[in-house]
Amino acid sequence: FGPFRWLKFLISLIGEDWIFFFLLGLFMGLTSWAMELGIIMLQKGSGISEMKTILRGVLLKEYLTFRTFVAKVISLAFALGSGMPLGKEAPFVHIASLCGALLSKLPVFRGIYENESRYREMLAAACAVGVGCVLAAPVGGVLFSIEVTFTFFAVRSYWRGFFSVTIAAFFFRVLAVWYKDEETVTALFRTHFQVDFPFDLKEIPAFAFLGIISGFGGALFVYLNRRIAQFIKKQKLFNTFLMKKCLVYPVMVTFLISSLLFPSGFGQFMAGELTQNEALVTLLDNRTWTKDGVAEEFDYIGNARVWMHPQVTVFGTLALFTIMRFWMCALAITMPVPYGAFMPVLVIGAGLGRLVGECMAFWFPDGIHTGHAIYPIVPGGYAVVGAAALSGAVSHSFSTVVMVLELTGQISHLLPALIAVVLANLVAQSLQPSIYDSIIKIKK
Amino acid sequence: FGPFRWLKFLISLIGEDWIFFFLLGLFMGLTSWAMELGIIMLQKGSGISEMKTILRGVLLKEYLTFRTFVAKVISLAFALGSGMPLGKEAPFVHIASLCGALLSKLPVFRGIYENESRYREMLAAACAVGVGCVLAAPVGGVLFSIEVTFTFFAVRSYWRGFFSVTIAAFFFRVLAVWYKDEETVTALFRTHFQVDFPFDLKEIPAFAFLGIISGFGGALFVYLNRRIAQFIKKQKLFNTFLMKKCLVYPVMVTFLISSLLFPSGFGQFMAGELTQNEALVTLLDNRTWTKDGVAEEFDYIGNARVWMHPQVTVFGTLALFTIMRFWMCALAITMPVPYGAFMPVLVIGAGLGRLVGECMAFWFPDGIHTGHAIYPIVPGGYAVVGAAALSGAVSHSFSTVVMVLELTGQISHLLPALIAVVLANLVAQSLQPSIYDSIIKIKK
Repeated sequence: FGPFRWLKFLISLIGEDWIFFFLLGLFMGLTSWAMELGIIMLQKGSGISEMKTILRGVLLKEYLTFRTFVAKVISLAFALGSGMPLGKEAPFVHIASLCGALLSKLPVFRGIYENESRYREMLAAACAVGVGCVLAAPVGGVLFSIEVTFTFFAVRSYWRGFFSVTIAAFFFRVLAVWYKDEETVTALFRTHFQVDFPFDLKEIPAFAFLGIISGFGGALFVYLNRRIAQFIKKQKLFNTFLMKKCLVYPVMVTFLISSLLFPSGFGQFMAGELTQNEALVTLLDNRTWTKDGVAEEFDYIGNARVWMHPQVTVFGTLALFTIMRFWMCALAITMPVPYGAFMPVLVIGAGLGRLVGECMAFWFPDGIHTGHAIYPIVPGGYAVVGAAALSGAVSHSFSTVVMVLELTGQISHLLPALIAVVLANLVAQSLQPSIYDSIIKIKK
Repeated sequence: FGPFRWLKFLISLIGEDWIFFFLLGLFMGLTSWAMELGIIMLQKGSGISEMKTILRGVLLKEYLTFRTFVAKVISLAFALGSGMPLGKEAPFVHIASLCGALLSKLPVFRGIYENESRYREMLAAACAVGVGCVLAAPVGGVLFSIEVTFTFFAVRSYWRGFFSVTIAAFFFRVLAVWYKDEETVTALFRTHFQVDFPFDLKEIPAFAFLGIISGFGGALFVYLNRRIAQFIKKQKLFNTFLMKKCLVYPVMVTFLISSLLFPSGFGQFMAGELTQNEALVTLLDNRTWTKDGVAEEFDYIGNARVWMHPQVTVFGTLALFTIMRFWMCALAITMPVPYGAFMPVLVIGAGLGRLVGECMAFWFPDGIHTGHAIYPIVPGGYAVVGAAALSGAVSHSFSTVVMVLELTGQISHLLPALIAVVLANLVAQSLQPSIYDSIIKIKK
């Protein structure tokens, strides 16, 4: 502990009190500066809708400056622990675009990106990195960013996204291995479904049904979100209040949602104690949670236990989870907080899928395969399909199929996921605009 | 056997001789008609390059007519058994576009597709179906068709491709299950790699090396193909000969390649008796073929045995396979035959990857993981990565990653495949145009 002793000696030399108060002052100063910047940020929106606007050629003032970058990173770090049903892919899209815009201003690169169209191509690649990096889904990230930010897409700028997203994914996973979290590179939410017989062809109608209700759900989500946002915009009194102290509204919403999710209170009926990621891990579980409608008695590993409640069946907790999180998320993304809707919608979709899957397992306890072997239903597969379908319906994109398969590390449910996402998009696109277009419309 | 007896009675009533010679005449007439049409077809090229030209707005005369459709299907059926190192995805792109163009002329749809841009969007979706259907890789098919046929892509027509490709993939797999080939829907070339530890991070440089040599290989392939095509174009004598009897050149090439591949002759050193699909299945095998450089003695299942030869090591047969098929394929696609280069290049890439993988397994017999557990090298994983990298380099596309993962049904090698494909594209794109652009250039 040589250097530490030296440091202590140095501190005692200058005077410990002096150092302590210097640090305290510095810290408080930084915090208040960050708070102020954070409040500026709050008026700026989540990220994807704004990037879509910029890539269409509209100039948003102060959206890609160094000041915004600092504010975004700090406010994101503050917001990470709040436990709200919000996702971090949209702010990451913004941060990646900020990094790109700032890097392009370095003297080394300045000449290259002064060209408007090249600059926009660079921003597009940055969007891809943002999505791919958060979800550790490089291919899905590139495709998703193309789908949600572009109207016309130049295929020649395709490689930019793939190249930078590969580097991002590589380092993201390499760091995880170096810090000994994992033995080697694996998927973020790895599933363990049987690969020999993942699903029966006769289950396809159930997957299609899941896709269709996801489509209606997605449209309802966008509608609900827009109605809430418009309702709040109309409240004159509320609005002047919000203008003065724009933290009041987020605090109110956060208080409402947190108290509903509180694990010892109402949250116990809907797995409130799980974070978003933990909930997703348990929903993708490859076992069936019920046998003949009663929760199975075998030993659940860790978190999956919270889905069992003495008074409510597994179906009840799953339904409550899906419905409550659904409106909570639609409400939460109306907050002027730098957060996205993609990840929470994915989790809600997984809950919906799991519910359908558990029902199927209840109705067909021995599976529906007519051959000699018995292949039981895998509710986790329905969770994968539901996650892809609902997130696809809300964002009007097909690449959620690829993303979900990359997230789970298993490709076995490709066909049902594809069918469900196509049907969900068919329904949702004919009823409502995508969540990003809806947000752009509200802000106009 | 009621109806059959009735038929026999009916035939005896009319006179068996008469019926027989009627059928013989009909068959011969059909054959000669097909031959004539087939020869017309031969001047029309493989498919992808032509569709690329059409989607850019150039009108190719008689390329999308009913006559071409009949000729294409028949000539494809004739050519399927030839055993040449050629792929069927390009003619399928053409057939799908033909189907699309013909369907759009039906009275029901005529009003819709008279609009030029909608017609082109429809053709684009048809291209996606063609690729996705042959390789049973719906997502990869859509992306590949976008990459190789478009310069600018309208994201709003994205759903068309996904929708029709999903339906195609669904029926393609459903039919396979109905005809009892398979128990349920699975990948075409399913691999069985261990999912817990598919590869070690320290193997990434080897994958990157594989990507870089694939990049050089892809560029060399395009160069070689163009030189052969230009050489043949220049031969005046040859050319007039070809004009008169345009079947001479294909017959010569076919004779040369077939005699080299003959299993009892030279073909025994390079697994000549395997068809393309069988070769790919064996190359993706999850076992290591050698131990300390000597072929393993355990019982190979079925086809994998042909890779072992008493006089040549496994490395020898793999190297011969890769090199010989490489120039053969570059030669074969200069034939005016309705065939594509994608699938054979994929198989050659798998051979190259397997060679690198077996070398790695030879140099590091206990794997290169430094922890307590021993994870041996999986040469089949290198075959997957090599297949994606070489086909990506030749076609200048990134979606081969998705396609290969869909083909094998395992997503575990996503990161190395992505790295290899990006590097391969980096090298190949800076040296040569893609094979499709190269063919367009030659034909000009």
